[in-house]
Amino acid sequence: MPALPRALDKLASLLARLPGIGERTATRMAFQVLSEPADYARSLARALDEVVDAVGFCADCHHVAEGTYCDVCNDPGRDPTTICVLEGIPELMTFESSGAYRGRYHVLHGTLAPLRGVGPDELHLGNLRERIERQGVREVIVATSTGVEGEATALYLQRHLADLDVRVTRIATGIPMGGELEYVDPDTLERALDARRELEGD
Amino acid sequence: MPALPRALDKLASLLARLPGIGERTATRMAFQVLSEPADYARSLARALDEVVDAVGFCADCHHVAEGTYCDVCNDPGRDPTTICVLEGIPELMTFESSGAYRGRYHVLHGTLAPLRGVGPDELHLGNLRERIERQGVREVIVATSTGVEGEATALYLQRHLADLDVRVTRIATGIPMGGELEYVDPDTLERALDARRELEGD
Repeated sequence: MPALPRALDKLASLLARLPGIGERTATRMAFQVLSEPADYARSLARALDEVVDAVGFCADCHHVAEGTYCDVCNDPGRDPTTICVLEGIPELMTFESSGAYRGRYHVLHGTLAPLRGVGPDELHLGNLRERIERQGVREVIVATSTGVEGEATALYLQRHLADLDVRVTRIATGIPMGGELEYVDPDTLERALDARRELEGD
Repeated sequence: MPALPRALDKLASLLARLPGIGERTATRMAFQVLSEPADYARSLARALDEVVDAVGFCADCHHVAEGTYCDVCNDPGRDPTTICVLEGIPELMTFESSGAYRGRYHVLHGTLAPLRGVGPDELHLGNLRERIERQGVREVIVATSTGVEGEATALYLQRHLADLDVRVTRIATGIPMGGELEYVDPDTLERALDARRELEGD
């Protein structure tokens, strides 16, 4: 790439560190910032400062939080005896949007990936056992993804918690609702067959 | 989406104003910012402030510039009698990377798009005629894109400059080098046929 003004180059290379943003996209974004009224870049800069100042992670479940605990952990209406273990906050947002879950969460901020040097110590697992005992948790639902790393993480959690008096369950895999059988991949189909259930009359 | 800390929401909605960044991606980016060490967000904020403070647009060609004029216009080695008209700075970067062009530029920062309310006054055209006269320009190469808006812009420029003693040319369209004929779209093929040339011996 030809030389750009240094400040623009620096902005682009910082933006390129964000997930899914390549060098080219980052450069385009930097140009766009420059094309907008100066107010835009200033607002974005202030928003970044404010996020660092005002937002952190929940001491219990590691979800985003403005204080020590997040909105979910602070909500007395959420069942403290069920914990759903998730890989990240985007997954938590999907759970919350569905309205299908009323328990609490535990966000790992990653999955086990020995090849990339991510072991149990790199995940936010340190306080999970303590939470299970303190909150009187009866069930831990492991909802990590169904890829190799997510499965390995689920297996690890099962063993890690085996000595505690708690059910460790795994969220079901199978044909998605409305999914067309014709296009289902072989692994999903195999899982869905393995996990078949008796149809019961009313 | 469930409620997020206000500062995080604000950051995400500002990021979503960048080109190609949807709401979902913007939210992911905001989470990522939060997951990085605080230094990252602070550096990004400073880089944004610095871009606004230190970088602007060239008074002649509207390329990015740290002073009144850009590096291209400041370079005495660049031919001032040829101007290449481009839609944006990403296109200029591509030209510069190729090393195929040694003249100057004129960046419109857009194309004519009457349906979106973009007329000639919204493009950076105001000083083009003045530049042509002052620099003794002999050729204006119109290198706007080959879509409807780029073509309309090229036609407008041809008329806009018709009374000046300057050649107005259009960059060639045709089969890309190394492109496979089998996959060339019909419009490109038609253009390439129309613009065919005599093969000449050495």
